[in-house]
Amino acid sequence: MNFDPSSLKYNEAGLIPAIAQDHESGEVLMMAWMNIEAVQKTLETGRVTYWSRSRKSFWIKGETSGHIQELVDFRFDCDRDCLLVVIKQTGAACHTNRRSCFYTAVRDGTEEELMEPMEG
Amino acid sequence: MNFDPSSLKYNEAGLIPAIAQDHESGEVLMMAWMNIEAVQKTLETGRVTYWSRSRKSFWIKGETSGHIQELVDFRFDCDRDCLLVVIKQTGAACHTNRRSCFYTAVRDGTEEELMEPMEG
Repeated sequence: MNFDPSSLKYNEAGLIPAIAQDHESGEVLMMAWMNIEAVQKTLETGRVTYWSRSRKSFWIKGETSGHIQELVDFRFDCDRDCLLVVIKQTGAACHTNRRSCFYTAVRDGTEEELMEPMEG
Repeated sequence: MNFDPSSLKYNEAGLIPAIAQDHESGEVLMMAWMNIEAVQKTLETGRVTYWSRSRKSFWIKGETSGHIQELVDFRFDCDRDCLLVVIKQTGAACHTNRRSCFYTAVRDGTEEELMEPMEG
């Protein structure tokens, strides 16, 4: 069946959450949002492109930082309202220069930092 | 630093997305939503509890199906507006009885089903 980006379910703002997962390690790196055009651009270019809610513009991941995300596999869930992009991540996914945005855990009621910013 | 559930950023509906990841395989199993009370219940009970937007009630994952999610690690992202729950999943995470909700890929413009429903 041909994939139609308009068959996905976008929220009232026209957005769908996209989880980025490393294709090799399986690590969950970040979650951001796409609109229908960002879905199309991601599939057409193979470069993961989000919609920046704060800047209200397309956000080709890594365009300024060089920390690009190459699309390895594009998946969506049973409700068609969440995306999973399996990617090859160059450098850090997080703007704090950590590999993943999910670097804080809650253990025994306390916040614990799990990883350091990457070198360089 | 002590963790305060009210320090997380909830959307205008009082919800935060939660990504569930298998603690062993690293597989991304599903994404659902929590409100502040669901966050508290999840941490207190060790049983992952979402907020069902359709039923407008707490949804203790697996309560009816037996497909429970035991919390292994609770993490949040740099913006404090997305959760990652690392879990031990009993049976299928998806209501279609598939291990993961992300069982459809888009490859060469075509939808491709990646996994079958589980047995039994």
